[in-house]
Amino acid sequence: MDEKDVRILHAVATEGTRSTDAIHEATGIPKSTVHYRLTQLREDGVVVNDLGDVDPAAVGLDVTLVTEVYAEFEKGYHEAVGEELGDIEGVNQVYFTLGETDFVVVSHLSSREMVQRVVEDFEAIDGVRRTNSTFTIQTVKSEPNPLADFELETLLDALVD
Amino acid sequence: MDEKDVRILHAVATEGTRSTDAIHEATGIPKSTVHYRLTQLREDGVVVNDLGDVDPAAVGLDVTLVTEVYAEFEKGYHEAVGEELGDIEGVNQVYFTLGETDFVVVSHLSSREMVQRVVEDFEAIDGVRRTNSTFTIQTVKSEPNPLADFELETLLDALVD
Amino acid sequence: MDEKDVRILHAVATEGTRSTDAIHEATGIPKSTVHYRLTQLREDGVVVNDLGDVDPAAVGLDVTLVTEVYAEFEKGYHEAVGEELGDIEGVNQVYFTLGETDFVVVSHLSSREMVQRVVEDFEAIDGVRRTNSTFTIQTVKSEPNPLADFELETLLDALVD
Amino acid sequence: MDEKDVRILHAVATEGTRSTDAIHEATGIPKSTVHYRLTQLREDGVVVNDLGDVDPAAVGLDVTLVTEVYAEFEKGYHEAVGEELGDIEGVNQVYFTLGETDFVVVSHLSSREMVQRVVEDFEAIDGVRRTNSTFTIQTVKSEPNPLADFELETLLDALVD
Amino acid sequence: MDEKDVRILHAVATEGTRSTDAIHEATGIPKSTVHYRLTQLREDGVVVNDLGDVDPAAVGLDVTLVTEVYAEFEKGYHEAVGEELGDIEGVNQVYFTLGETDFVVVSHLSSREMVQRVVEDFEAIDGVRRTNSTFTIQTVKSEPNPLADFELETLLDALVD
Amino acid sequence: MDEKDVRILHAVATEGTRSTDAIHEATGIPKSTVHYRLTQLREDGVVVNDLGDVDPAAVGLDVTLVTEVYAEFEKGYHEAVGEELGDIEGVNQVYFTLGETDFVVVSHLSSREMVQRVVEDFEAIDGVRRTNSTFTIQTVKSEPNPLADFELETLLDALVD
Amino acid sequence: MDEKDVRILHAVATEGTRSTDAIHEATGIPKSTVHYRLTQLREDGVVVNDLGDVDPAAVGLDVTLVTEVYAEFEKGYHEAVGEELGDIEGVNQVYFTLGETDFVVVSHLSSREMVQRVVEDFEAIDGVRRTNSTFTIQTVKSEPNPLADFELETLLDALVD
Amino acid sequence: MDEKDVRILHAVATEGTRSTDAIHEATGIPKSTVHYRLTQLREDGVVVNDLGDVDPAAVGLDVTLVTEVYAEFEKGYHEAVGEELGDIEGVNQVYFTLGETDFVVVSHLSSREMVQRVVEDFEAIDGVRRTNSTFTIQTVKSEPNPLADFELETLLDALVD
Repeated sequence: MDEKDVRILHAVATEGTRSTDAIHEATGIPKSTVHYRLTQLREDGVVVNDLGDVDPAAVGLDVTLVTEVYAEFEKGYHEAVGEELGDIEGVNQVYFTLGETDFVVVSHLSSREMVQRVVEDFEAIDGVRRTNSTFTIQTVKSEPNPLADFELETLLDALVD
Repeated sequence: MDEKDVRILHAVATEGTRSTDAIHEATGIPKSTVHYRLTQLREDGVVVNDLGDVDPAAVGLDVTLVTEVYAEFEKGYHEAVGEELGDIEGVNQVYFTLGETDFVVVSHLSSREMVQRVVEDFEAIDGVRRTNSTFTIQTVKSEPNPLADFELETLLDALVD
Repeated sequence: MDEKDVRILHAVATEGTRSTDAIHEATGIPKSTVHYRLTQLREDGVVVNDLGDVDPAAVGLDVTLVTEVYAEFEKGYHEAVGEELGDIEGVNQVYFTLGETDFVVVSHLSSREMVQRVVEDFEAIDGVRRTNSTFTIQTVKSEPNPLADFELETLLDALVD
Repeated sequence: MDEKDVRILHAVATEGTRSTDAIHEATGIPKSTVHYRLTQLREDGVVVNDLGDVDPAAVGLDVTLVTEVYAEFEKGYHEAVGEELGDIEGVNQVYFTLGETDFVVVSHLSSREMVQRVVEDFEAIDGVRRTNSTFTIQTVKSEPNPLADFELETLLDALVD
Repeated sequence: MDEKDVRILHAVATEGTRSTDAIHEATGIPKSTVHYRLTQLREDGVVVNDLGDVDPAAVGLDVTLVTEVYAEFEKGYHEAVGEELGDIEGVNQVYFTLGETDFVVVSHLSSREMVQRVVEDFEAIDGVRRTNSTFTIQTVKSEPNPLADFELETLLDALVD
Repeated sequence: MDEKDVRILHAVATEGTRSTDAIHEATGIPKSTVHYRLTQLREDGVVVNDLGDVDPAAVGLDVTLVTEVYAEFEKGYHEAVGEELGDIEGVNQVYFTLGETDFVVVSHLSSREMVQRVVEDFEAIDGVRRTNSTFTIQTVKSEPNPLADFELETLLDALVD
Repeated sequence: MDEKDVRILHAVATEGTRSTDAIHEATGIPKSTVHYRLTQLREDGVVVNDLGDVDPAAVGLDVTLVTEVYAEFEKGYHEAVGEELGDIEGVNQVYFTLGETDFVVVSHLSSREMVQRVVEDFEAIDGVRRTNSTFTIQTVKSEPNPLADFELETLLDALVD
Repeated sequence: MDEKDVRILHAVATEGTRSTDAIHEATGIPKSTVHYRLTQLREDGVVVNDLGDVDPAAVGLDVTLVTEVYAEFEKGYHEAVGEELGDIEGVNQVYFTLGETDFVVVSHLSSREMVQRVVEDFEAIDGVRRTNSTFTIQTVKSEPNPLADFELETLLDALVD
């Protein structure tokens, strides 16, 4: 991927749209180029469906880190700590959990240097007491849309009154 | 949401497209209805962007479970176990990790009955020795597209040679 | 259950009596209504015996939480911390234990919002260092009166000199 | 307490009633004696309210044990294991939990010999892999009726639609 | 045991002698009584050998507690903390260990009240961060003199150059 | 210490007596030698009191090992496993405990080779699943007679009715 | 590094010599080339001293893995398991330890694929029950010769009688 | 080993050379003695190859300690803490790791006194919160040069582009 690819894919992700017009407006890249590049990236499997979802590994974010975060006990601490965790670049998901761990965080990163930086960023948050990160050897499944995790019948039973 | 909404959203997720034609073909619902419903769901915040990403809670999948799975030691066991975990309905992400836990699994579910069923499904897999699930009190962040987790400049530095 | 049911059942629990007179006095609800409602709740299985014991799930308290509480070390801390834990609404049992955990707490709650509030209330207690809560998937047994846990012969052996 | 007291209190617990007639029928003890003894036990604080609830310590069950039970993984195992745990004499509560521990069990016992027997009974159940028991130094709170754990207003908010 | 027995046995333990003269001097109890009582206690199995070793359970110290103590990190802290642990009444052995736990402490106590007091005394020591106590269901072996743990031949091999 | 010292001290420990006659009978060493040697060992601090108690370090048993033993679950397993643990040379104390660990074992040993042998002996017992040993850096306190752990007044309160 | 560099460095490591003759004999690479290349690698910092020690990262082995290995309990198992662990390519150090973990293993690897292969090789050993690997973010210190870890004076005190 | 041996081996390690001239210069010991002693130590197996690598046990450093270090969370703390750990005499390797433990440290020591000193030195570092050391019963493998851990073919595949 070159700079244009990255600019286009980033705009798709942050603007939440695949409209050529909107991407052009956000990036200044000519519409025809936007269209051509997206088609190409779709053909190369970097973009995995017509919705613009990307394969993190194909895009260069091939290091996935799962981190348990233990935080200090202060009334309402988790709101603040949770948001700060979410603001760290590369952090994709932040769950405030009920059990022994306060947060479970999933990050997609591109290199070991980035891992070291993210771990240091976790540490730098006030209220974070301890973190425990583990590398993902393999992402067996990661489905962008949770509705695709079910058979239609199951969903109808569960979600329709 | 009624049955039509669920059918349309499920098709968006599994077909990987927001094209009215494609959704119509997959569901048999008239194109005008598909179009109207998607517009409505977008306005209601169930669909969160032009890419068709949904808010799991708004869609009724408001229970998120993070599960650590410990498996038996057999050469190549993790391939088989990982796939079986991914096949369980409701399982959204499966990571094969390096540390003490063999897999970390994230599921989006709609009720406590579904939780009990999923936990029993985990147990029923040959090679699964022990699981440890925890409820998510709050999903602080969950971004469908990992590129949106970064500033553009960081991505350009990291992904462009 | 409507408001009258809740008022009557609450009075049974806090006054420790099933006397129609006493319930009437505590709630202002006419005696005949008290009598009728209790009979009805008994028939519906909400009240499970002639002693006025209720089925927590039938009454709407269908979320049971088991929490381990770790507290700070101060001479006599456990008296104060234990009492504060017991004062939190929804907390049903508080055990000061000998092992690694300082307290084990059992709560019966009615919703996930209540869970989040109770966990925050635990955190807000001075001297509480860390908590670890887990949901109960199923209450397999919960007997209000511990004497019912034994055969009569065992009790006679154990309790009569 | 003598044998008559134990017989009467056991009948109250297992029949779920304080009716003199019913206790007489269940125990064969004359009604007047039943009435007199229950009044006496109420005055002595062994029976703690008009509902017949007892103070476990006053009744001689002054050892409370909290046990974590880890079980084997077999489809549906927890139904069978949970019931067997509940059938052990002295076991008062059995919770099937979501986290690392499979069951949390609370027992009220009368002596160290009984503790040893109960721990051995846990072990003897097929499918139980490991148990971890801890003594309760002090029961800070144990409320027979969970409705008494709430202010009336909170209950009305939570349980009335 | 009556008061005289306790006085005599305590003197044997603290003076480190079974000499009738020395015990008499330490306790003021007539020599003939000292002699008679010790003979009697020996016959009753309270004193288990001619060296004056006692059976803790027979003497009434039938509760054995094993406690892991975690302490704060300060240069030389363990000397001070270790000594304070050893000074607590009922503490029989204090080991400063290499692993995760800082100290392992063995106590012989006579009642649950004493257990609660000892646990509070542990907590009251400056520098003690956390303790984890467990009851001993059964003392399978406790040999006062470690030389009796070996065959003579093994000792000769190990201790003679 | 030479061979005679070891023989004499071993006899004191296993015969449970300091009587010169008895030691002579058990060892075949002349009474005058027995007497002289014991006096000498007392003066050297190897024997620490008139009861014949030894300082394990002075006697050459300067390695103390604290071991947690996890055993398999079989009805009555702990009796058998506990006895086998106690039969291993060097094992001084075996406690069957209530918590997560099944046994806590204290051993006094003379060398690293002996440590390796003892750990292997633990492993060789049927029913032992896992052991966790830790070295004692320093024995802060080890009192042969538990009565010496108390003030006389405390003992009188606790042990005399 | 090209193939000749790798052949030469491998020969230095496995033959345990820097002699040009010996390296030539082992590799068939002309002596002058051996000499030139070693000089060059020394200048480039790949070879870090005149003894031929290499910097693992400079040589391309920039992934260091620390693994805890838990093994089954069989008499003498650790000899066999330890050797099999040591035979796995990339494994640099294998320690049979006293504590909860049976072995601690340090590996130097060149890629994530190699990590996955090594973890699978650990799993494939009979008698290995569970492993827990962690990545090294940074090797802060790794000194080939342990004598360099001490001041000379300390060594003289410690090692000279 | 006498003082000259230690001086020579220390110089080999710290100067990173086996050159007789360089060792002579560093130690003042005559070249012929240096040569003779090194030959002798090589023959005795203390020096294990022509590169001057030593067998830690043969040299008297026969106690290997593996220590997990938990540190406080401060931005950039690990740089400082890691360096201080590496500066402690006897510390051979320091790894800054990704998981629950902050550092894994390997030390080669000569006596239990040295163990106690090193553990105290760990504690004395600002920012170190807790350490967990374990003895190595046996060093199954410790290869000074990581290239010797591989077959040549594997290295060529992995390291040559």
